[in-house]
Amino acid sequence: MASVRIREAEEGDCGHILRLIRELAEYEKLSDQVKISEEALRADGFGENPSYRCLVAEVLPAPGEPQGPSVVGYGLYYFTYSTWKGRNVYLEDIYVTPEYRGTGGISSKIIQKVAQVALDQGCSQFRLAVLDWNHRAVALYKALGAQDLTETEGWHAFRFEGEAMRKLAGK
Amino acid sequence: MASVRIREAEEGDCGHILRLIRELAEYEKLSDQVKISEEALRADGFGENPSYRCLVAEVLPAPGEPQGPSVVGYGLYYFTYSTWKGRNVYLEDIYVTPEYRGTGGISSKIIQKVAQVALDQGCSQFRLAVLDWNHRAVALYKALGAQDLTETEGWHAFRFEGEAMRKLAGK
Repeated sequence: MASVRIREAEEGDCGHILRLIRELAEYEKLSDQVKISEEALRADGFGENPSYRCLVAEVLPAPGEPQGPSVVGYGLYYFTYSTWKGRNVYLEDIYVTPEYRGTGGISSKIIQKVAQVALDQGCSQFRLAVLDWNHRAVALYKALGAQDLTETEGWHAFRFEGEAMRKLAGK
Repeated sequence: MASVRIREAEEGDCGHILRLIRELAEYEKLSDQVKISEEALRADGFGENPSYRCLVAEVLPAPGEPQGPSVVGYGLYYFTYSTWKGRNVYLEDIYVTPEYRGTGGISSKIIQKVAQVALDQGCSQFRLAVLDWNHRAVALYKALGAQDLTETEGWHAFRFEGEAMRKLAGK
């Protein structure tokens, strides 16, 4: 049987990551918002001061199977800063392609690895955002011990962009 | 009459920033969560690879007034990464001390400056989070053109921390 490993992404994975980013946006019904390119992912994640880090979930074929390993999921994160707790990790995206969901707990393995990275880097917490209608994800994160801060403390996410941002900036 | 200027924070401002961080946490009724120290703020924001950037609002006395300038507000931000849009700005905290609220639009000036920084850095958006009972702040951000993504798209903020995070990491 095929096995799965979670490893740090390499620059050569960017094509696979972009494919999965597009799948995720489609699942979230927000795919018109994806403007990133493979080149940008390469430049932004694998230069001198990377803007993000990424884990990939790779399915390794059983011995004797002809195909090579394939990337079936990813977790993309970066470091943020809390004025209460200091440096933290933010898991921007976590995604596993549909045919590998529920088979070997790949999402849980990615989250476990993010927790390890966060602790290794001296972070006391990590955060993520989820759409309220994504009941499967909400249930998983809660089962793994996450707290819904929008529910318990009332946090809402706000965004400035486009014309509103340019007007603010006087540009 | 005194005037206000928004400028980039310097390392020597960290004592003032910490004072305001504590005031903000008290206002948010979450002051037991503040664990940061002035030393950590200095090290994290003013070293080789700063974890955050900060703007301060400074009241300049009128000519002839004896006191020096005083820091009455701050906006602390950092760079994040969207897999849809690339590099973004996240405004972690924005705060103006009560006696200077509503007098000269200091919060709006801080937000305008953040919008300028974001555009100058090639970011297409900036985000922040606000507590739903903070009606004054919600009204201000909406008036300035922000969209409440929790309301319109259903985003909820989740956090892993403490025992749950250590258990996940197997530590």
